[in-house]
Amino acid sequence: MDDITLYCFAQSGNSYKAALMLNLCALPWTPRFVDYFNGETRSEAYRAVNPMGEAPVLEYTADGRRERVSQSGVILDLLAGATGRFGWADEAGRREVLRWLLFDNHKFTSYTATYRWLVAIARNGDPAVLEFLKARMLGAFAIAERQLGTRDWIAGAQPTIADLSMCGYLYFEDEIGIDLGREFPNLKRWLGRIAALPGWKHPYDLMPGQAPARP
Amino acid sequence: MDDITLYCFAQSGNSYKAALMLNLCALPWTPRFVDYFNGETRSEAYRAVNPMGEAPVLEYTADGRRERVSQSGVILDLLAGATGRFGWADEAGRREVLRWLLFDNHKFTSYTATYRWLVAIARNGDPAVLEFLKARMLGAFAIAERQLGTRDWIAGAQPTIADLSMCGYLYFEDEIGIDLGREFPNLKRWLGRIAALPGWKHPYDLMPGQAPARP
Repeated sequence: MDDITLYCFAQSGNSYKAALMLNLCALPWTPRFVDYFNGETRSEAYRAVNPMGEAPVLEYTADGRRERVSQSGVILDLLAGATGRFGWADEAGRREVLRWLLFDNHKFTSYTATYRWLVAIARNGDPAVLEFLKARMLGAFAIAERQLGTRDWIAGAQPTIADLSMCGYLYFEDEIGIDLGREFPNLKRWLGRIAALPGWKHPYDLMPGQAPARP
Repeated sequence: MDDITLYCFAQSGNSYKAALMLNLCALPWTPRFVDYFNGETRSEAYRAVNPMGEAPVLEYTADGRRERVSQSGVILDLLAGATGRFGWADEAGRREVLRWLLFDNHKFTSYTATYRWLVAIARNGDPAVLEFLKARMLGAFAIAERQLGTRDWIAGAQPTIADLSMCGYLYFEDEIGIDLGREFPNLKRWLGRIAALPGWKHPYDLMPGQAPARP
């Protein structure tokens, strides 16, 4: 796997999942800035890169061919297979990682990312929508908080791509407006454990783009 | 894989994904009714079965041991591996199936299931929340509609577990209140192709429980 390029932008926690994995695995990679805020992901050109219209997208060369992969969970799975890092020991372990990866996509990241988007970036959410999303986000947080009450990592004895997926938006804690240390102390300690892994960086230090301006 | 039990209930499209796979693979299975509407999934006893508090859960015996698996995507992956049906031919195929499985969990089923829940079952959604969810559901439909414009199945030349996952809530079309034939004709034809597979049944004919009463 050579010449790795990651389509990404700093505000995207989904991009961060892939960027963090690349950094933790010490793989050389080049960011390709996605100009999301000027509508790039809605353009026909971008839809040709990813019909789902999302970041991240990973491009790399293998066996002389240029390959392209989208969906953060697929990129994480691919990189775990290629590096032997942050994966699983057996089939039961693989299923447990997949279970949390799906939970992350279905409820954990999905509500968190959308809520954070509305409160910190768009800042035009209807109060009922914000309340709806926040309640579901907190419900997902509570499930992870409980899971982390009896273990250090989400899906195994060691950190896996499930941890790297689920942490995607949580270093934006101040933008989300939740005091994790007070309300979800297990989550907060788990984020500290991930941040202590060699190669860890905050999303705003890892990808092109910048933090949203303060209101 | 023997003595298969599926924790499920008829109104749950996520349960349907697993039930449909079992039926299409002609595996004998017993439904175990989950009394969602009386709060069973919020009970401590159920949380011991599935800490995520969701249906479906698959139980089965393998090598003399009783195993338990949750998350519809993990169950589909497990059954594809066990039966050799609705899977993939190679690694690239596996990744393509996973990509759509994640898209389904992140955006396609997630918004559709929540919107349908509010309009057809709870019937107490704030109009702004309904509008928000509907717009995102239609955005996800549009991406699948485009994908199905050039192929018969979502993630390959043959039906895969990605199709069985994504169709989970769409046979509740009348409850959702969308005329798929008019607005998303490719989706409608694709649902017809799935319904023509031997062993197909409608969710209300496959799992215990009943359609919600008409308003």
